[in-house]
Amino acid sequence: MGIVMGPNQYGKAEVRIVAVNRDTQRHNIKDLNVSTSLRGDFRSAHLTGDNANVLPTDTQKNTVYAFAKEAPIGEIEDFALRLGRHFVATQEPVTGARILIDEYSWQRIPVGGTGHDHSFSRASDEKRTTAVTIDGDRAHVVSGLKDLVVLKSTGSEFWGYPKDRYTTLAETDDRILATAVTARWRYLRTDVDWGKSFESIRATMLEAFASTHSLALQQSLYEMGKAVLAKHPEVAEVRLSLPNKHHFLVDLSYCGLENNNEVFFAADRPYGLIEGVITRDDVEEAPQAWYSLPEF
Amino acid sequence: MGIVMGPNQYGKAEVRIVAVNRDTQRHNIKDLNVSTSLRGDFRSAHLTGDNANVLPTDTQKNTVYAFAKEAPIGEIEDFALRLGRHFVATQEPVTGARILIDEYSWQRIPVGGTGHDHSFSRASDEKRTTAVTIDGDRAHVVSGLKDLVVLKSTGSEFWGYPKDRYTTLAETDDRILATAVTARWRYLRTDVDWGKSFESIRATMLEAFASTHSLALQQSLYEMGKAVLAKHPEVAEVRLSLPNKHHFLVDLSYCGLENNNEVFFAADRPYGLIEGVITRDDVEEAPQAWYSLPEF
Amino acid sequence: MGIVMGPNQYGKAEVRIVAVNRDTQRHNIKDLNVSTSLRGDFRSAHLTGDNANVLPTDTQKNTVYAFAKEAPIGEIEDFALRLGRHFVATQEPVTGARILIDEYSWQRIPVGGTGHDHSFSRASDEKRTTAVTIDGDRAHVVSGLKDLVVLKSTGSEFWGYPKDRYTTLAETDDRILATAVTARWRYLRTDVDWGKSFESIRATMLEAFASTHSLALQQSLYEMGKAVLAKHPEVAEVRLSLPNKHHFLVDLSYCGLENNNEVFFAADRPYGLIEGVITRDDVEEAPQAWYSLPEF
Amino acid sequence: MGIVMGPNQYGKAEVRIVAVNRDTQRHNIKDLNVSTSLRGDFRSAHLTGDNANVLPTDTQKNTVYAFAKEAPIGEIEDFALRLGRHFVATQEPVTGARILIDEYSWQRIPVGGTGHDHSFSRASDEKRTTAVTIDGDRAHVVSGLKDLVVLKSTGSEFWGYPKDRYTTLAETDDRILATAVTARWRYLRTDVDWGKSFESIRATMLEAFASTHSLALQQSLYEMGKAVLAKHPEVAEVRLSLPNKHHFLVDLSYCGLENNNEVFFAADRPYGLIEGVITRDDVEEAPQAWYSLPEF
Repeated sequence: MGIVMGPNQYGKAEVRIVAVNRDTQRHNIKDLNVSTSLRGDFRSAHLTGDNANVLPTDTQKNTVYAFAKEAPIGEIEDFALRLGRHFVATQEPVTGARILIDEYSWQRIPVGGTGHDHSFSRASDEKRTTAVTIDGDRAHVVSGLKDLVVLKSTGSEFWGYPKDRYTTLAETDDRILATAVTARWRYLRTDVDWGKSFESIRATMLEAFASTHSLALQQSLYEMGKAVLAKHPEVAEVRLSLPNKHHFLVDLSYCGLENNNEVFFAADRPYGLIEGVITRDDVEEAPQAWYSLPEF
Repeated sequence: MGIVMGPNQYGKAEVRIVAVNRDTQRHNIKDLNVSTSLRGDFRSAHLTGDNANVLPTDTQKNTVYAFAKEAPIGEIEDFALRLGRHFVATQEPVTGARILIDEYSWQRIPVGGTGHDHSFSRASDEKRTTAVTIDGDRAHVVSGLKDLVVLKSTGSEFWGYPKDRYTTLAETDDRILATAVTARWRYLRTDVDWGKSFESIRATMLEAFASTHSLALQQSLYEMGKAVLAKHPEVAEVRLSLPNKHHFLVDLSYCGLENNNEVFFAADRPYGLIEGVITRDDVEEAPQAWYSLPEF
Repeated sequence: MGIVMGPNQYGKAEVRIVAVNRDTQRHNIKDLNVSTSLRGDFRSAHLTGDNANVLPTDTQKNTVYAFAKEAPIGEIEDFALRLGRHFVATQEPVTGARILIDEYSWQRIPVGGTGHDHSFSRASDEKRTTAVTIDGDRAHVVSGLKDLVVLKSTGSEFWGYPKDRYTTLAETDDRILATAVTARWRYLRTDVDWGKSFESIRATMLEAFASTHSLALQQSLYEMGKAVLAKHPEVAEVRLSLPNKHHFLVDLSYCGLENNNEVFFAADRPYGLIEGVITRDDVEEAPQAWYSLPEF
Repeated sequence: MGIVMGPNQYGKAEVRIVAVNRDTQRHNIKDLNVSTSLRGDFRSAHLTGDNANVLPTDTQKNTVYAFAKEAPIGEIEDFALRLGRHFVATQEPVTGARILIDEYSWQRIPVGGTGHDHSFSRASDEKRTTAVTIDGDRAHVVSGLKDLVVLKSTGSEFWGYPKDRYTTLAETDDRILATAVTARWRYLRTDVDWGKSFESIRATMLEAFASTHSLALQQSLYEMGKAVLAKHPEVAEVRLSLPNKHHFLVDLSYCGLENNNEVFFAADRPYGLIEGVITRDDVEEAPQAWYSLPEF
């Protein structure tokens, strides 16, 4: 019997970068949160503190900033691929990398009816995300979004479920359905028009959420994933993590008022949590692409 | 010498309410966070635990929900005025009230090019706010907004400041200026078209921020407040609290790259904090309206 | 009628500093979050962007770090007084300052039964605080603590309150009482043994909370403040802000179980909020000492 | 080619429960955050919204509360095992479950030198955790802790690392090493004295962190895991996720001061992130036990 060092990775998390494109007086900005992790032969660092194989996380951070200047950042997927491949190509002991990027969105401030050249306001709390995995010569791209909060004020039911001695919930044919979407989808290729694909997938999921008359949040989840796969041959699978943000109808009978699904208490905790994978049945699985991502 | 109970208030904080207007199939929603506090004669509760004068915070919460049903919520200022006046009018020992409301904004999800009837997405993290103070027969309305994050990628300088032995900052004639606006403004009347006034004040502040070539965040602050007062006779004074969200130019000389105000590190802490009041010189002060609000 | 610049202040917020005392091999550490604000004649910065009077917030930050090295930090009250007086003494246009400090506490990691010389673990989320105000020659010290979470599993009642048409709460003679204490107290002098005074005030408040059979959270608040004033002649007044962190008894009748105050749901929002001042009746008020602190 | 529903789970997240043991006048409290997830045959819910197999998350929550009353909660591992096995045993379509529990710790408030019978204060922000997986007849227990913040003020070096064109970091033989420990360890059995094992593992990791003269955070990570495995035959493997909470030495040369590792800036972002598994080389792997846990 022996004690051994198993899988491991290390890197710099949450490198906050804002890049300004000043090619013309009409600036564009990119606002990113970049995390890099390296995988490879780091046994000596663990066993004896020998850092000969350990490219410092500080250097990883410097690399992120330099890469943002050496060429335009472009789409986050391309930026992550460039970064990951660089570390694997230039550091002998590094055989793999995981690059995570969140992108914040900004819009131009309107002045006199048109958007200002160099003044912006944050658009929303939603982030576009990517998780790129480099494994030797292979590259996996899993993109997504998070903190997209949506709500249906009707068009949602919940009934027909099993009852046991702990059941108190009443069945309903009309409730509020609200969630904060975390979605990730795995691409089958790396030569994708990332920005166009993202915008279309996002719109497709929103439209599916809105249009589905929902008998269960599970059903909405499936419809959202299915719609993406139906429309996007470049996507192998979609994973969704949907908290059921409960809105409880307030019982106003205490003061003689009827509450016809009009006044709700928006609860914080506990919340339902519905998670699942919608996938094609003819694609190869890629557990490496998903390894250690927090979603189910 | 004696020990005495001084000023005090109590209430229910952060009552989360979502109200659906179902008058037509095209729903509208109001999403609020309401806090109520009562002021008056609560000596006995403090000295002996006698609650004869203490309307429970649970009842205050129930009142918020009932009021949302008894009549349309309307603008948050009107809802807060109704709530505050109710407590003072109906509870003998209650002589004053402070009602705080934050409003979250939602937009319709586009489906087939038009906004859906009953499906919404959260618009941004920005909140519209009001702080209404009832003091006997008087009512003060201080409205505002918070978490409005804005950024100028150029058009900001900082130089000409005093130097001492602790100075290291270099002067600059081009930097990123970014802040998260918290603004509050005090109304001179209560018969205002609140929604219209809010939209115009918000647009005016944004436009002033964008248009001001800034030599100091203090200058931007003043221009934002001044523009509001110039355009809105119903407003007595504006208070702004502006964190200077530093974006530091990354020195890329380590790899021989020049960084012409293109790549920035967005720092979390510490941050500058610029706070001030812009006011008319001929209005009566109203310290009661501002008492215990966290801004300067 | 004119638009004018009113009261204002500016500074550097949340300067995070860890100072190690290495006088012996048995190290001591101080972990602080320091915010500085200057008050004085900054009209030109606001009106025209002239920064001749504006000591940069970056320099304020540098001063904090240098002061931590030039002499031992000592108690946070003394460190804040030194910083505040320095800015007023050395910058002509600066006539006042507000220095806020939060202190995090650490304990030694036990190794072989004794505390390690230079290895520490964070003690709790509670912070010791001070808010020092320099106003020309005068200095006010308001110290306190925050995020001290306490709970009584019995010894708390709530009944005898007024009922109206919105009342649903049942009276109770046994409930959980829980709160997160934010306390601030104003000192009458600046030649206090700050550390000793803090420890005694903290212990006194905790003991009063524990020992009071509570008929209202208001009563606990008053007893906590009164106990401090009775024991500490150096303190003029105590301000407490106590969220009532509700623990609701779970109705287990759905499965035939009786719940004798044993199983509770710990709710997040809404929460009660009880705030008040306990003061001596023969001390001069000092509104400047409290100005713009967020507590009631 | 077809689109199919892949792996999925659903449940109730963050059920906050405080249970009071009132067997004697000297109360004990348990403060937990419980999340339940069920796995099994939920195809119909996804495909058609048929909930015949879906035990509501509301019922799962009710079950948690009822179980806390039907028998003493005991150790969190036993409570999680009871809950998970109950769902699998009583719901035909449910073939597996994941139960996550965080436990908050409290200490008695000292009154007159001894701990009070029923008054408590929150001990620290650290949580004890468990993640129990039921997979048919099998049960996996992965316990741990999180938010344990530790710091060494000396006894940490970092040098000997590779340099490239992006390197700027200087080597050092004396730095602050600080991290917030998230640890999880997998048990080989379910008949463990959980409380005793937890206390010993926690003390062992702390002692290893303190005692290791660290040449790399990787080395500290390995020593912490190795010490646990050496002492605890009931543990198969340990996973650690250690953010490197950077404390940067402040360069005080601007005012002519030398800074001998005394004054540091505690940075928020970015931070290093070191993650790894320390394992026995003769145990069977159990990917199911770890599936979808957020740590590497």
